[in-house]
Amino acid sequence: MRLITIDDVRAASDRIGGHALRTPLLRQTWDERELWLKPENLQPIGAFKVRGAVNALAALDEEVRARGVVSYSSGNHAQAVAYAAQQFGVPATIVVQDGAPQVKISATKAFGAEVVEAPMTERRAVARRLAERLGRVVIPPFDHPDVIAGQGTIGLEIAEDLPAVSTVLVPISGGGLASGVGTAITALCPDARVIGVEPELAADTAESLRAGRLVRWDAADRARTIADGLRTEPSELTFAHLRATVEGVVTVTEDEIRQAMRVLATRARLVAEPSGAVSVAAWLFHQHELPAGPTVAVVTGGNVDPTLLAEVLQAR
Amino acid sequence: MRLITIDDVRAASDRIGGHALRTPLLRQTWDERELWLKPENLQPIGAFKVRGAVNALAALDEEVRARGVVSYSSGNHAQAVAYAAQQFGVPATIVVQDGAPQVKISATKAFGAEVVEAPMTERRAVARRLAERLGRVVIPPFDHPDVIAGQGTIGLEIAEDLPAVSTVLVPISGGGLASGVGTAITALCPDARVIGVEPELAADTAESLRAGRLVRWDAADRARTIADGLRTEPSELTFAHLRATVEGVVTVTEDEIRQAMRVLATRARLVAEPSGAVSVAAWLFHQHELPAGPTVAVVTGGNVDPTLLAEVLQAR
Repeated sequence: MRLITIDDVRAASDRIGGHALRTPLLRQTWDERELWLKPENLQPIGAFKVRGAVNALAALDEEVRARGVVSYSSGNHAQAVAYAAQQFGVPATIVVQDGAPQVKISATKAFGAEVVEAPMTERRAVARRLAERLGRVVIPPFDHPDVIAGQGTIGLEIAEDLPAVSTVLVPISGGGLASGVGTAITALCPDARVIGVEPELAADTAESLRAGRLVRWDAADRARTIADGLRTEPSELTFAHLRATVEGVVTVTEDEIRQAMRVLATRARLVAEPSGAVSVAAWLFHQHELPAGPTVAVVTGGNVDPTLLAEVLQAR
Repeated sequence: MRLITIDDVRAASDRIGGHALRTPLLRQTWDERELWLKPENLQPIGAFKVRGAVNALAALDEEVRARGVVSYSSGNHAQAVAYAAQQFGVPATIVVQDGAPQVKISATKAFGAEVVEAPMTERRAVARRLAERLGRVVIPPFDHPDVIAGQGTIGLEIAEDLPAVSTVLVPISGGGLASGVGTAITALCPDARVIGVEPELAADTAESLRAGRLVRWDAADRARTIADGLRTEPSELTFAHLRATVEGVVTVTEDEIRQAMRVLATRARLVAEPSGAVSVAAWLFHQHELPAGPTVAVVTGGNVDPTLLAEVLQAR
């Protein structure tokens, strides 16, 4: 299996400029430790997913791209592909699960995409059939080298902006983000460590990395966490990258995730969704499991129900 | 009266690098109009005030600066001066009003500053006496060329990042920010217009600009607005800058400010304090009073009581 390289990430970086935001690193002074946030919630669509989606579309032959793309997701990847397709002026069809929240469907349609509903377990198959029928390419949420390389531009930017970085904290779900960031950081900052973060309730990758092989958790178990963006599991492709570039995984509790959301809103003035706050939860509550030195926590997204955010702000 | 020039703003930009964040412009796609946000809530201390404070300290002779500084404020300027003094390793004493919120006092002390309480109306006099006794310089919140030039770096960055800007929306209170931004934009983007924004309940500058002279509103009247950072009034120095560089003032209601806070949190994933949301309130609700074309709204700060933010998120 071919793993992506830093050259793939550099190529992605050249492609996504002008479509994705080059996010700054934000120095935090919450305590004496050196923490920087990478605020991917500020991207168009409010999540890092725009990097992988734009790179995947940009890497297509122009003629192929012109026919349009298909994807499947009920989360941020749906909006990311819709946004990327709009940027390139090509059609997009997104397959979402039956009964997906209307607000997410509207957001995807707002970027000009067509939305098709299908049962959760059949989304991928429906997307593939649609793509075949329409002569289009499928842009998967993480199981694709160009998507991984696109997410890896976050690691490239961290290495450029903070070469002395010691630790990079990234959420792991399908593993595309951690694979890309791991590839970039391993290549550019060989002394730094990339550490994954998972909810305790969806800690399949922590277990898999310990076991040295993919251990599958039941989807219903993974669905227990409030972090709705972290309920997926790695593919063979992303797991191979994770084994090669990720040092370990820290797991966080549901309450720690909520507290991290609150700290992000009040001290960093950033709205993070639960999945976007887990890296900060690890930093706040698992200090003893982390290496010392300058740390970057990737805040992956900020698409959160206002009622949940209000609830978190009023806790205590 | 000498007004600051673009050269002063350029000098400020050179001085503040490394101490203040060069904030990105964030493109929003809320409707078909072209809106960019300048998120100053992401600065260290959570507000643009860090630019003016750092520039004022950096511009001092090293020997003078080493003796330390004094300031008076109960808002973001207090933390900005404390932060700037810590960056330069010099002592700072901040005079706050009797009974100022403990959370603000703690935040200021966290940067190593000494905090002295005094009655609201005597803060400035107490600060001056303290400075005289300690042989220190006073760094006022807005009535100072170096503070104005520091805030003006926001305009310089806007001109660099979006040369085709048509309109820049900035809150006006003491007027330091609008004076600095107005100076930079007038010099670098002569076709663009800088438009001030005030709460209806503290619209003294709107009235002053119409009258062509400083019209004073009672402090108790200005204090009615939820936008606690916009309860001050311009000085002769800032008003001279405003007359020269600001096209006009749009006024917004209290409810519009709250709605803008909600939109910023849910659609831009930014936590804004009421004062930081007024420019977006103008853009959302006063379209007919604004010129067409690419618009930048400066989101000046994000230091808001979590309870108020939760309340705003749950409205409707």
